[in-house]
Amino acid sequence: MNANTAHPLVLFMPSGKRGRFPVGTPVLDAARQLGVYVESVCGGRATCGRCQVSVQEGNFAKHGITSSDDHLSPVGPKEERYDRVRGLPEGRRLSCSAQILGDLVIDVPQDTVINAQVVRKAADERVFDRNAAVRMCYVEVEEPDMEKPLGDLDRLKAALAADWHFDEIDVDFHLIPKVQQILRKGEWKVTAAIHRDRDDDRPRLIALYPGLKNEAYGIACDIGSTTIAMHLSSLLSGRTVASAGTSNPQIRFGEDLMSRVSYVMMNPDGREAMTAAVREALNGLIDRVCEQGGVSRTDILDSVFVGNPIMHHLFLGIDPTELGGAPFALAVSGAVDVKSADIGLPMNEGTRAYVLPCIAGHVGADAAAATLSEGPHRQDEMMLMVDIGTNAEIVLGNSARVVAASSPTGPAFEGAEISSGQRAAPGAIERVRIDPETLEPRFRVIGVEPWSDETGFAEGAAATGVTGICGSGIIEVVAEMYLAGIISEDGVVDGSLAARSPRILPNGRTFSYLVHDGEQRITVTQNDIRAIQLAKAALYAGVKLLMDKQGIGNVDRIGLAGAFGTFIDPKYAMVLGLIPDCDLARVKSVGNAAGTGARMCLLNRGYRREIEDTVRKIEKIETALEPKFQEHFVAAMALPNKVDAFPQLSTVVTLPERKVIADASGEGGRRRRRSRD
Amino acid sequence: MNANTAHPLVLFMPSGKRGRFPVGTPVLDAARQLGVYVESVCGGRATCGRCQVSVQEGNFAKHGITSSDDHLSPVGPKEERYDRVRGLPEGRRLSCSAQILGDLVIDVPQDTVINAQVVRKAADERVFDRNAAVRMCYVEVEEPDMEKPLGDLDRLKAALAADWHFDEIDVDFHLIPKVQQILRKGEWKVTAAIHRDRDDDRPRLIALYPGLKNEAYGIACDIGSTTIAMHLSSLLSGRTVASAGTSNPQIRFGEDLMSRVSYVMMNPDGREAMTAAVREALNGLIDRVCEQGGVSRTDILDSVFVGNPIMHHLFLGIDPTELGGAPFALAVSGAVDVKSADIGLPMNEGTRAYVLPCIAGHVGADAAAATLSEGPHRQDEMMLMVDIGTNAEIVLGNSARVVAASSPTGPAFEGAEISSGQRAAPGAIERVRIDPETLEPRFRVIGVEPWSDETGFAEGAAATGVTGICGSGIIEVVAEMYLAGIISEDGVVDGSLAARSPRILPNGRTFSYLVHDGEQRITVTQNDIRAIQLAKAALYAGVKLLMDKQGIGNVDRIGLAGAFGTFIDPKYAMVLGLIPDCDLARVKSVGNAAGTGARMCLLNRGYRREIEDTVRKIEKIETALEPKFQEHFVAAMALPNKVDAFPQLSTVVTLPERKVIADASGEGGRRRRRSRD
Repeated sequence: MNANTAHPLVLFMPSGKRGRFPVGTPVLDAARQLGVYVESVCGGRATCGRCQVSVQEGNFAKHGITSSDDHLSPVGPKEERYDRVRGLPEGRRLSCSAQILGDLVIDVPQDTVINAQVVRKAADERVFDRNAAVRMCYVEVEEPDMEKPLGDLDRLKAALAADWHFDEIDVDFHLIPKVQQILRKGEWKVTAAIHRDRDDDRPRLIALYPGLKNEAYGIACDIGSTTIAMHLSSLLSGRTVASAGTSNPQIRFGEDLMSRVSYVMMNPDGREAMTAAVREALNGLIDRVCEQGGVSRTDILDSVFVGNPIMHHLFLGIDPTELGGAPFALAVSGAVDVKSADIGLPMNEGTRAYVLPCIAGHVGADAAAATLSEGPHRQDEMMLMVDIGTNAEIVLGNSARVVAASSPTGPAFEGAEISSGQRAAPGAIERVRIDPETLEPRFRVIGVEPWSDETGFAEGAAATGVTGICGSGIIEVVAEMYLAGIISEDGVVDGSLAARSPRILPNGRTFSYLVHDGEQRITVTQNDIRAIQLAKAALYAGVKLLMDKQGIGNVDRIGLAGAFGTFIDPKYAMVLGLIPDCDLARVKSVGNAAGTGARMCLLNRGYRREIEDTVRKIEKIETALEPKFQEHFVAAMALPNKVDAFPQLSTVVTLPERKVIADASGEGGRRRRRSRD
Repeated sequence: MNANTAHPLVLFMPSGKRGRFPVGTPVLDAARQLGVYVESVCGGRATCGRCQVSVQEGNFAKHGITSSDDHLSPVGPKEERYDRVRGLPEGRRLSCSAQILGDLVIDVPQDTVINAQVVRKAADERVFDRNAAVRMCYVEVEEPDMEKPLGDLDRLKAALAADWHFDEIDVDFHLIPKVQQILRKGEWKVTAAIHRDRDDDRPRLIALYPGLKNEAYGIACDIGSTTIAMHLSSLLSGRTVASAGTSNPQIRFGEDLMSRVSYVMMNPDGREAMTAAVREALNGLIDRVCEQGGVSRTDILDSVFVGNPIMHHLFLGIDPTELGGAPFALAVSGAVDVKSADIGLPMNEGTRAYVLPCIAGHVGADAAAATLSEGPHRQDEMMLMVDIGTNAEIVLGNSARVVAASSPTGPAFEGAEISSGQRAAPGAIERVRIDPETLEPRFRVIGVEPWSDETGFAEGAAATGVTGICGSGIIEVVAEMYLAGIISEDGVVDGSLAARSPRILPNGRTFSYLVHDGEQRITVTQNDIRAIQLAKAALYAGVKLLMDKQGIGNVDRIGLAGAFGTFIDPKYAMVLGLIPDCDLARVKSVGNAAGTGARMCLLNRGYRREIEDTVRKIEKIETALEPKFQEHFVAAMALPNKVDAFPQLSTVVTLPERKVIADASGEGGRRRRRSRD
C-alpha cells in the first residue's frame, strides 16, 4: 500500500479545501481539520443529523480524483438508526459516521445561503461559511460519585472539555442554580449552548437543555428611523424561518432623525421614552417572528442589531444629543456585545446581543452592515454605496482603500419638507411619467397595481386615495419635469408653459405643476424643486468629495441601499444627478443590505471581526471640514449635473420605453454645453 | 562609565527582588519590570500618591550594595507639589517621579499586611503582595474630533491602551449610556476601574469616575451557619477599614445545617426564603461596614465569599437538597465569579463577587479559604486543620500532598443534642474546672469576667443568667469529669461517687453531674457524654483515616479553625482525644482562618488561582466509603484514646495550673495499658 492509498485525497466542495487523511477517518473529522464548516450538535453520536454531506458523483475526474463507490464506508448501524428514526435524504450521509476509504469529493450542503446577494458573493469565489457565536454541544456527563466529589457543573465542564475541547468555560450565573436539575432531568445527557464571540474569548455556557437540543435561533434586526425589520434564523442550518417589519414607533416623537434629537433635548424623559418605544416595538417583532416560525422565544440565543447612529444610541439607551451638533461625537463607535436582557429584550436569560460598530457620527452601524454585505473592501472594483435618509451615508472604496462620509441632504428625499410629500405608504405616488408634448402626467400609487391611465386605477385608488408623493415619486416627477422641459437646468418652472397646459399653475411669484387634482390637490411647487435641488446637490457633493479623495473620475459600481434605494429608479437618480457616472447595468438597489450584513454577523462571527476591522480602517471624511465640499455643492445645484460627470446620460434617455427621449437628449446636450461655458 | 554604573543595581524590600536599570529609570518602572507590586492610580502623574516608597538607609552594605545620598534623583517639582497639596510622610518618595541614579535599596511599605496570621506568614519568608482583581486607572482622554470620529468610549479605550497597556477592553453594559456624561463631567479626565480576575481575562471596565478617583474598596465575607462575618478593605492600600458580624438569620429555619436542608425539602419556598434571608443579612452587614468605614456602598467594587457547602449553595440560590444524602453532589464545586448584583447584593453596578471553590460535598469554601490562609500546601511540615461544625471539615497535608475529608460529628460539639447545651452566647458556660477531691466545679460564663468562685460573679451573672453549656464548655466539662475520675474510660458516670458528692445525681438508670443549680439546673447527663463520645470518635476517626492515607503516626502542627477552634482549649481537645498527638505548643486556634483566606483572595487575585489549583489537587476522602473509618471510630470511643496516639498526654496533665493531674495521669496510664489488652 503506498502512502497515497493509505492517505486518500478528500476534496470538500464548494470551499475547494482538500487534504489527505488516513483510511478510516470520519469525514466530519477531516472537514474540521481542514477548517471546513460542518455543523454537529451531538458530537459524533449520529443522533442530531446536522453533519449531513453528500458524495459528489460523476465528475471526480474534473478534480483530479478518481473514485469508486467503495471510497466511503457503507452505511453503518448508527446511520441506519438515524435514517429509520428521523429520515436521511437520498444521497446524504452523516459525516460523523461515514469514514474515508479512498479518494472523495464531498459536497457540504450550503443550506446557509441566506439570500441572492450572498449567492452573488459565493459566485465571486466567496463561500459563505457558518460559524455562529453560539454553538449547541451535546454531552453525556458523569454521574456524581462520592469518590470524586466534583460538582455537577464541574463534571459538565469536564465533559465539554473532553468532547468539545472547551478547556476553560465561563458560566452565566443564571444557570448555576439550575444545572443540577437540568442534568437530572436529562439523565446526565444535556445540550450546552456555548457562546464565543471572538477566537480569544473563553467559551461561555449561556444555556443548558436536558437531552439533545437540536435547534437554536437568532434574530438579525435593522432599526431604521422609519421601519424596523427583523429576521429569525436557525443558528444551525442558517435558514431564515421568519421575517417581520413594523414602523418605528419613535415616529410619534419626530418624523426625521433631527426632530427626534430635538425631542430628547427638549424633554427630560425624552430619551427614556424613545428607548422604551423602540424596545417595545422590537419585543413585538420578536413575538411575531417567533409565532410565524413556530419558535419559542427562549430558543433565541443570539441577536444582531444595526441602525444609524441616532437609532443605535436610542436603542442602547444612550443620549443622542451629542450627535445633534458638532463635533457629532458618538458615545460609542465600536461594536457592542451585551446580554439581550440588558437592553430590554428578554428572550432566553443567556441570549446575547451584538451591535455592529458605527463608522462615524452620521454614518452608522447600518452603513457598516451594508458595507459588510456588499463588500467594497473585498473587491478590486471601485464601488459606491449610498444610503439616503435625513443624511446620506456614503461609502466609496475597494480592497485597497475605503472612504466614507455623510452628506446633509435633509429630509426632502424622504418626502418631508415637500408640499405634497409623504412617507412611502398606500396612497403615495411613487412613479410618474410626463408626456413632453401634452405635459400630462401618468402615475402609479402605492397599493394600486394599474397606472393612473390604466383600467382599474380608479377602483384601486378608491381604497387608498391619492394622498401625496413619496421619496421615489418626487425624484421621478422632478426628473420628468426636467426631461419634459417644464423646468430649466436652474430648476425654474417655466411659467410660459401655463399658456399651453392647465397643469402649470401660478403660485405667488412662481409656478407649480399639478400632478393630480382629486380629493387632495397634489402639486410640485418651485420650493419643492429647490428642496430636491439642495438635497441632490448635497448628496452629489459628498460623493464627489469621496471621489476626489480616491482620485477617481468615475466608479465601477453603485449600490443604492435602504428603502429609498429599493424604490428609486436608478435612471432617474442619474438624470437628476444624485449619483455619478456609472454603467447603468452596474447601478443596483442593494435593498436591505444592512439587514443582510446583520444576518451575516448572526450566522458567522468572523464577519463581526471583518466589519470591525473594516470600520477601523475606513477613512472618515467630515464634509463640514472640507472646503471642496461647498464648491461641489454649488456646482451640483444645476439639473442635470455638468456633462463631464454624465457622458452616459444619452444611454439613459434613449431607453426605448421613453418617447420623449430624443428631444430631451438634444435639449440636455445643449444645456450641458451651455453650463460648461 | 562601566556598565554597572550606567545600570545601577536596585533591590526591593521586603520581596528581595533585584535588577539593574538604566540611570534615570523611575523607581516605579523598575518595580513593575521586576514584578514588585507598587500601587499607582494616576499612571505616573504624581497626583495619587499611591506609589510611595522609601530608601532603606544605613544597611546597604548588608545587601552588597554601596549607596550614597545622590543615588536617587532629588525631589522634583511634581513631588514638591504633591507634598504641598497632600503631604508626603518623612522619608517617603513617589516612585513614579523618583529616578534611579545609582545603586539603591528600596523599601516598599507593606500597608497590606492584613492581620497577625499573615504577618506570621511573612515571617515564614512569604511576602504578601497585593494584586487586586480591580485596579483604578486614571487617564486623560482625547476630546472628540470631527476628523477622527471615534466614539467617547473608544477614545477612553485608546487612552487605557496607551497609558495602562490594556489593549482590548470589554465594557460592562451599564456604563455605555453613562460614558459620555462622565467624560464631560471630568473634563476628559477620568478614573477607570478595570476588573481582571485571571491573567488571560480580557480586562473589563466595570466602573468609571470623573477626575482622579483615588480609592476603591472590597468586602470579604465568611458565611457561617451560625455567624456571618464581613470585612471591608481598601483595594488600594489593603487596609481593613471596618469589620462586622451578625448571626445567620437562617437559624430561624433550623439551628444546624441538616435541619436547614430538611426545611428546604419540606417547604416549597424554603430555599428561596433562606437565600433571601442570608442575602438580607449580608446587605445589612454591607451597610454597617460602610457606615463604620465612612465608605459609600457604590465604592465597593469587589467582594469575596466563603462558606460551607450548604451555606454556599443557599447563598448562591442553589437547592442544597442533594447535599443532604449520598452521593452528596455539589451543584458546583469550582470557584464562582459573578456580578454582586446577580446574587442580590447591589453595590456599584459593576461590583464583582468571587466565591471560593468547595473541596467536597461536606468540605466547603470555608475550608478552602482556611487552607489558603494556613497554607498546609505551602509548607514541608505535616499540618492538620480541623473545623468543627455539624460536620468536621478535616484537611491534612504538606507541600507534597494534601488530603481532606469530613466526619459526621453531629451537632454535639456545637452544644446541640446536649441536654443543657446552647449556642455560644451570653449566659453559656464556656470554661469548667472540677476539683478531683471535692468534685465541686468552678466555671466561667460568656459575658461575665470572673469565674463562678470569684467575687463579682454573682453580679455579672445576674445580667446574663447561667443558661447552658456551649460547645467549648461541654468539651471541658467532659474532660474534667474524666480527669476527676467521675467518668471511666468507657464514658460511664461512676454512680458510686454519689455517696461522696451531691453533684452526682441519679437519672433513671444512669447518673448525671450537676454543674450549676440556679434558675436553670445545668447537668451533664450520661447521654450527653455519649453524644460527645460519638462526636469525638467521628472526628478522630476522620483524622486517623487521613493520617493513614498520608502514612503518618503524628502531625507537626494542628490548626483549629472556626468559632469552636477559637474557644476550645487545645489541652482539653487532646485530653478528650479530639485531635491526635502533637506538640501542644504547635496546636493553635487559627481563628477566622476562612475570613483571612477570603481577604487574601480579595487583595490578591493570585490567591484565587492558588486555592483553585490546590483544591483541584486535594485528594478527597469520603469517610463513608472507607472500611477503616468504622474501625477507627469504634476504637476512638474510649476516653482518652489509646496511648500510642498520645505519648504527650503526660505533658498535658502535668501543666502546673492543674492540681488534679498527678492522679489522673496515673489513672490514665493504667487505663491506657488496660485498653491495649
